[in-house]
Amino acid sequence: MTAIDVQTDPARYRHWRIEFDGDVAYLVMDVDPKGGLSDQYELKLNSYDLSVDIELSDAIQRLRFEHPEVRAVVIKSGKDNVFCAGANIRMLGKATHGHKVNFCKFTNETRLAIEDATEYSGQFYLCAINGNAAGGGYELALATEHIMLVDDRRSAVTLPETPLLAVLPGTGGLTRVTDKRKVRRDRADVFCSIEEGIRGAKAVEWRLVDELVPNSKWAEKVSTRAHEFARRSDRPQDAAGITLTPLERRIENDRLSYSHVDVVIDRSRALASITLHGPTQPIPKSVAAAHALGATFWPLAVARELEDAILHLRFNEPKIGVLLLRTEGDAQAVLDYDNFLLQANGDWLMREIRHYLKRVLKRIDVTAKSLIALIEPGSCFAGTLAELIFAADRSVMLIGAREGDNRPPAAIVLGRANFGPYPMGNGLTRLATRFIGEPEAIGRAEQKIGAPVEAKEAAELGLVTLTFESFDWDDELRIMLEERASFSPDALTAMEANLRFAGPETMETKIFGRLSAWQNWIFQRPNAIGEQGALKLYGSGIQPTFDKDRV
Amino acid sequence: MTAIDVQTDPARYRHWRIEFDGDVAYLVMDVDPKGGLSDQYELKLNSYDLSVDIELSDAIQRLRFEHPEVRAVVIKSGKDNVFCAGANIRMLGKATHGHKVNFCKFTNETRLAIEDATEYSGQFYLCAINGNAAGGGYELALATEHIMLVDDRRSAVTLPETPLLAVLPGTGGLTRVTDKRKVRRDRADVFCSIEEGIRGAKAVEWRLVDELVPNSKWAEKVSTRAHEFARRSDRPQDAAGITLTPLERRIENDRLSYSHVDVVIDRSRALASITLHGPTQPIPKSVAAAHALGATFWPLAVARELEDAILHLRFNEPKIGVLLLRTEGDAQAVLDYDNFLLQANGDWLMREIRHYLKRVLKRIDVTAKSLIALIEPGSCFAGTLAELIFAADRSVMLIGAREGDNRPPAAIVLGRANFGPYPMGNGLTRLATRFIGEPEAIGRAEQKIGAPVEAKEAAELGLVTLTFESFDWDDELRIMLEERASFSPDALTAMEANLRFAGPETMETKIFGRLSAWQNWIFQRPNAIGEQGALKLYGSGIQPTFDKDRV
Repeated sequence: MTAIDVQTDPARYRHWRIEFDGDVAYLVMDVDPKGGLSDQYELKLNSYDLSVDIELSDAIQRLRFEHPEVRAVVIKSGKDNVFCAGANIRMLGKATHGHKVNFCKFTNETRLAIEDATEYSGQFYLCAINGNAAGGGYELALATEHIMLVDDRRSAVTLPETPLLAVLPGTGGLTRVTDKRKVRRDRADVFCSIEEGIRGAKAVEWRLVDELVPNSKWAEKVSTRAHEFARRSDRPQDAAGITLTPLERRIENDRLSYSHVDVVIDRSRALASITLHGPTQPIPKSVAAAHALGATFWPLAVARELEDAILHLRFNEPKIGVLLLRTEGDAQAVLDYDNFLLQANGDWLMREIRHYLKRVLKRIDVTAKSLIALIEPGSCFAGTLAELIFAADRSVMLIGAREGDNRPPAAIVLGRANFGPYPMGNGLTRLATRFIGEPEAIGRAEQKIGAPVEAKEAAELGLVTLTFESFDWDDELRIMLEERASFSPDALTAMEANLRFAGPETMETKIFGRLSAWQNWIFQRPNAIGEQGALKLYGSGIQPTFDKDRV
Repeated sequence: MTAIDVQTDPARYRHWRIEFDGDVAYLVMDVDPKGGLSDQYELKLNSYDLSVDIELSDAIQRLRFEHPEVRAVVIKSGKDNVFCAGANIRMLGKATHGHKVNFCKFTNETRLAIEDATEYSGQFYLCAINGNAAGGGYELALATEHIMLVDDRRSAVTLPETPLLAVLPGTGGLTRVTDKRKVRRDRADVFCSIEEGIRGAKAVEWRLVDELVPNSKWAEKVSTRAHEFARRSDRPQDAAGITLTPLERRIENDRLSYSHVDVVIDRSRALASITLHGPTQPIPKSVAAAHALGATFWPLAVARELEDAILHLRFNEPKIGVLLLRTEGDAQAVLDYDNFLLQANGDWLMREIRHYLKRVLKRIDVTAKSLIALIEPGSCFAGTLAELIFAADRSVMLIGAREGDNRPPAAIVLGRANFGPYPMGNGLTRLATRFIGEPEAIGRAEQKIGAPVEAKEAAELGLVTLTFESFDWDDELRIMLEERASFSPDALTAMEANLRFAGPETMETKIFGRLSAWQNWIFQRPNAIGEQGALKLYGSGIQPTFDKDRV
């Protein structure tokens, strides 16, 4: 199988168009049936596979960065009589378990990106449903703030997975039905049992959609509503977007190289080492100068490259179980860039970059690989980059210097970036999650902002897991990594998913922690994926045979 | 396989002893290796199967009802050098998926019952760990308020499941580590990776235990601490307990009969009909008179019988997918008993009964069967019994009367019991969960307290899902039940688990909703249960072979 690549651009889209109307953009879904990742299935009726979601994710991102003038985004269908049939069933039937899980994770991240744009970017998403919105198609609508349904006696919203496919509705859909749209639970039960879905006034009464529009006024009303939403936006007037230029990237067999990120894969030990390089240029002289740098501005460049690397490892390197997180460079330079970003927070582009860094760090939080941060001399775990330590399952720090190395001992430098701008999915900062049992430790850490913290003090402050002297380092690390590699990958995935998110739950953590786990369970059950299972037999005309035991 | 019966009493215990010392009770775990549910395994080293947990559950319950003088309970081991080795691995290796899941659910309920007793019953639980507490053994300790560990250089706490068994630690253990004891997440990661566990001062520093006690002072210190905790209790002086006498129960092939509960199984339709009968005696003249009734006092009797019926159906009737919830009797009589209970809330026994009803209703909430409440003429869905409507996935109410039936039309009568005393695991009442999207509906319902609400009004108030006239009733119900029976049981289990708990998450909902789902997933994975999986090969001397793909 060819590697999955999440990099694309509108000129290469096969499934989406972006149309502009002043401060409103239309994201038009018009899936090319033959444009999927594999030729084993056709993407009929606007059904989707990962290739469709990769383009959607790219479009959402470009609208934020390249189009400051866009203040409302309408998702609609480019096909007559169908909005979107959801995830392609033949694709799901043929995919490996790992691909299904990764696909669902990425689509959830994409839907959360829609909600993030609405909440933080002043780009309000609406959905205009003309035709049927089924399963993942309705889930796409659920991610928007305002769902409009045409009243044509045919168009409906539906979550037909339970009756049709023996899997869970959508992959985050149920959580949005109960916790975002707050549909009454017995109505949700009925809704999820009806193949043909719910349409018309009942869809409004049940809170499944926000507005019903007569066919005759459809286009006009959608446009009016979108422009109304656009007026609420705080996006700037007359700003110019920046272009998300193609990544500087070289992919080799065991190495990925970017301008600020390097990934080296060690297959024999089932691990990858990701090194982030700190900025080599001083901060721009002004916010305008930062704009002029565009996609080469260090914080944006490193965010894009790190995101690409993480997604590459998720999709294409299932056998790599451990990611070693490293940094190299000047800690003060990282803090300088952090401060530049935070001080220019009123600027729309700096705000976008900060929220983008937040989303990339969240992708790391939900990556099903063991994360170990290595803090050594020459590293620059400062501010934003120090978040990698707190995203990691463990962190290991070298005490003092290595023989023959003249660099000062490794140090962590905390910054304001560690105390607010990058909340996890649970709504807490990584430090607040880490210190949930000893909130006073957050205050102690905060007092160290800007001061290099070496190993002994870092351990005392609870910032790192383990510290080793240089003569122990290699052996201890080798043993730790061998041990990790010897454990069951499944037990590790579940254990890490549970340990990473202490404290409060949000819709987001429910989607990743609870609903995904149930879907993963179902994706293993013979009733779904067995030879007689509903996913396997879908479309064959043969009824699935279920083991009727309730578990 | 013989049916699993959760009824027992101390005279029949094979695994536990209860020892009394004034206001302190010791729950002594001394598992009989040959006393398990099956002779395919031996329960060595205080490892447990369901038979051990059934006795523990019974003991916790009896301490609350039969021993008002007990104010602190110490869980300890009756064996030298081992506290508890956790769930028996050979049992897990041989059990069906369904049994494993039901076993884990019941043990979680039992551990929550320990926490409930501490919080609401004034019986504070402590754990005295002398020897190793591993896996589920440590999880038992985690359920108590105060964990004491002997400092003998050998005794340790440990969650060795990831390294040893390729499954998740405990089944609620991880959640209690992060969310109850609030152990730092990277320390939790290290702790869960170390087979031999953590002992001594480090166990205290890492918040894994509360207190380390020298061997020489062990028994004395445990006793002192327990009596200290006992002094915090608000349990009464000089009260007499009541005896939880054996249930009046007749089990036939397709029928379970109790004094106030009847269960009729219809195997051809894969459903069971549970009918609760309202009280036939007027309320007692006084609280003392209610005490004198003991286990025959209607609210207590119906709670015990309903709990037994639900657990019987869970453990012994996996093919029964739908439970029809019905009531028969006088609604006012139910409300009278409710009011009696609530007015006498200062009385320890009435308080116990109320909390017990709460726990039984919670067992229904997490039962993996579709719940459909049928509200017909002659029913008494009032107050406490009306909670069944709101626990159900759907409720169906008959409009008007049936031909030839002189009884008045079906009515729901709300009471104070529906607005506070029975919170779900998410901390909200069932009505508040139901109306999470329209909180004003709770106020509307509250205004109807005491007034019979017939079908049309019940639908308007949002209290029921569907209403049918008598001439449609049979057909509509038949179609609904046939439809439900045609769906994949797995999809239904997961869908219901997700729809039942909208809104806030608690440690309890995390345990059932999130952690259990991950464990269920792992219990399906070849790395755990395949022929080369860790659970299958445990104790054989052969190393498991893992598929190393990260999912």
